[in-house]
Amino acid sequence: MKVTAAVAWKAGQPLSIEDINLDGPKHGEVLIRNVAAGVCHTDAFTLSGDDPEGIFPTVLGHEAGAIVEEIGPGVTSVQVGDHVIPLYTPECGQCKFCLSGKTNLCQAIRVTQGKGLMPDGTSRFSKNGQAIYHYMGTSSFAEYTVLPEISLAKINKAAPLDKVCLLGCGVTTGIGAVLNTAKVEPGSTVAIFGLGGIGLSAIQGAVIANAERIIAIDINEDKFEFAKQLGATDCINPKHFDQPIQDVLVDMTDGGVDYSFECIGNVNTMRSALECCHKGWGESVIVGVAGAGQEISTRPFQLVTGRVWRGTAFGGVKGRSELPDYVEKYLRGEIKIDEMVTYTMPLNDINRAFDLMHQGKSIRSVIIY
Amino acid sequence: MKVTAAVAWKAGQPLSIEDINLDGPKHGEVLIRNVAAGVCHTDAFTLSGDDPEGIFPTVLGHEAGAIVEEIGPGVTSVQVGDHVIPLYTPECGQCKFCLSGKTNLCQAIRVTQGKGLMPDGTSRFSKNGQAIYHYMGTSSFAEYTVLPEISLAKINKAAPLDKVCLLGCGVTTGIGAVLNTAKVEPGSTVAIFGLGGIGLSAIQGAVIANAERIIAIDINEDKFEFAKQLGATDCINPKHFDQPIQDVLVDMTDGGVDYSFECIGNVNTMRSALECCHKGWGESVIVGVAGAGQEISTRPFQLVTGRVWRGTAFGGVKGRSELPDYVEKYLRGEIKIDEMVTYTMPLNDINRAFDLMHQGKSIRSVIIY
Repeated sequence: MKVTAAVAWKAGQPLSIEDINLDGPKHGEVLIRNVAAGVCHTDAFTLSGDDPEGIFPTVLGHEAGAIVEEIGPGVTSVQVGDHVIPLYTPECGQCKFCLSGKTNLCQAIRVTQGKGLMPDGTSRFSKNGQAIYHYMGTSSFAEYTVLPEISLAKINKAAPLDKVCLLGCGVTTGIGAVLNTAKVEPGSTVAIFGLGGIGLSAIQGAVIANAERIIAIDINEDKFEFAKQLGATDCINPKHFDQPIQDVLVDMTDGGVDYSFECIGNVNTMRSALECCHKGWGESVIVGVAGAGQEISTRPFQLVTGRVWRGTAFGGVKGRSELPDYVEKYLRGEIKIDEMVTYTMPLNDINRAFDLMHQGKSIRSVIIY
Repeated sequence: MKVTAAVAWKAGQPLSIEDINLDGPKHGEVLIRNVAAGVCHTDAFTLSGDDPEGIFPTVLGHEAGAIVEEIGPGVTSVQVGDHVIPLYTPECGQCKFCLSGKTNLCQAIRVTQGKGLMPDGTSRFSKNGQAIYHYMGTSSFAEYTVLPEISLAKINKAAPLDKVCLLGCGVTTGIGAVLNTAKVEPGSTVAIFGLGGIGLSAIQGAVIANAERIIAIDINEDKFEFAKQLGATDCINPKHFDQPIQDVLVDMTDGGVDYSFECIGNVNTMRSALECCHKGWGESVIVGVAGAGQEISTRPFQLVTGRVWRGTAFGGVKGRSELPDYVEKYLRGEIKIDEMVTYTMPLNDINRAFDLMHQGKSIRSVIIY
């Protein structure tokens, strides 16, 4: 079938809106219609050419709300008309990782997904006989796309897809980092570095966890008002201090925070986030994605004296098992998403969404198909 | 009183056996007679001059078995004749750290202990009017010494002090790293880097935890036979491989180990220990102490994909609460200590114990007073 998509033909160039071919779903696959999709920094990272694993031409996008249009042979867990959120981290329920009970990093289709292909080793997208690659197993910047069944979380139809699409990445990553990865306890002191969509969502996670003190850190003070609305108790700008920000935080908190979250992707901030943790028990979670080849470092004494360094992907959330409940929490008002959507626009304007993000004007732009 | 001690007058010089003055115990303090003391790499590190916190002149030693000789005013938890193990990490039971339930790093006397002083800010050791500093709050290389009450673990008198002295540091650190810090589960795959006293004890910890596979790594193959006696299932020498040792371990274990322990103090090995961990859940514990100013580093992707980096001091063991049970485990044959003692010698020969350690010939030399 012909579908309209935003094609990234080459790194560093604007996306091109055009009609391309989409083959129907094969065994275990599902054709979905994307109703809305968020534009995330990871899309921009790959488009920039800095992502060493970027493959072109491709259809970017990995944060969507969609409706099942057609199921391939063998598909049993979703049916036509179901509302779904595509998962760039699938959940097969059968691999060593899913069975471990210790991680959400299902590896069932990792190899082919990393090559921009469906599990059978081919692409469903093409134009004039040339294959166009899938991206993160989702390729949400197309009106229709095909995904493996294990990459779809079925959700409540009552939820507006142009809002809960953000549960496909940013909001879930931030909340899950707090609840699933760090397991923040009530009464904790928490520091959150970076107030983009993920950092703001981490604030929400800390509120849900009943953290007592939630310290938000950013160099852009325009973000502080919304951070406080979401529940931040303190907002600080590192540029206002001569000392390293970790020392400021240790002083502010009588020895350091119980948990910290790096939601930027800057290896220097990752170090600060670790070193602002309390001796004896403070845990730091890396949520942001650093540039290719960059490294984190610290003195081992930081760990020997009881700090813990972790990371998280998709907030440690198992998409098929847990995302439906995130949607219910949204419907009950326990997770705020509407406020995270700063712009909505049609697919034709998608390059503007990237511009707004680069200018720091957008928490999330949502593309409406 | 006059006591015979091995005095470290200056960094880099042999210890000098001589009589020095020891003042009696003040409020909350206890005079103990050291019966035996182990010689540990940390003593050698400080003596070398490389320890930036080393203070001279001092009486080194921090791994002892002792008997209470006299108690100062206000002491209630031990009495004359009790057998005790001195603790360089005290347990006051009342500070923020003790009350947290999350760490063994009691901070009640950290500041004075770090300055080589008793909690009242003075030293009990002197010679010809010159103060001689305490070391790690213990100074076990003297026949008699004074310690705060909170720095003594009372143990079963049936235990031979010339053996259980090793529970004052090395054996407990290795076992505790596995049981308390990593909390290794039955069936786990474990890698242990470095087969000194701590690494060998970590093997014991892994056996107690019912780990299924225990991979011991060292460049000195002379240590492999004893490692296997203790329970190592595989012993490997990194020099036999062209690839980095972390890659070798990942290949050997179908994706990496569940837990790794760095028991050397080498920042490069610390990186290998992290990176040999299994994606999704592998945890690495830094046990060894690195040289001053050295840093660990890795790509944040290692953590974002689910590995965890921790450290431990004294194996996360709370000395007064937990060490008595370690002694019982030894008495029941569940912890092997006798085999860890490679030499015993009188205090007069203590410089030979350091020589043997530097030559790699000794797991532990024990000084008998």
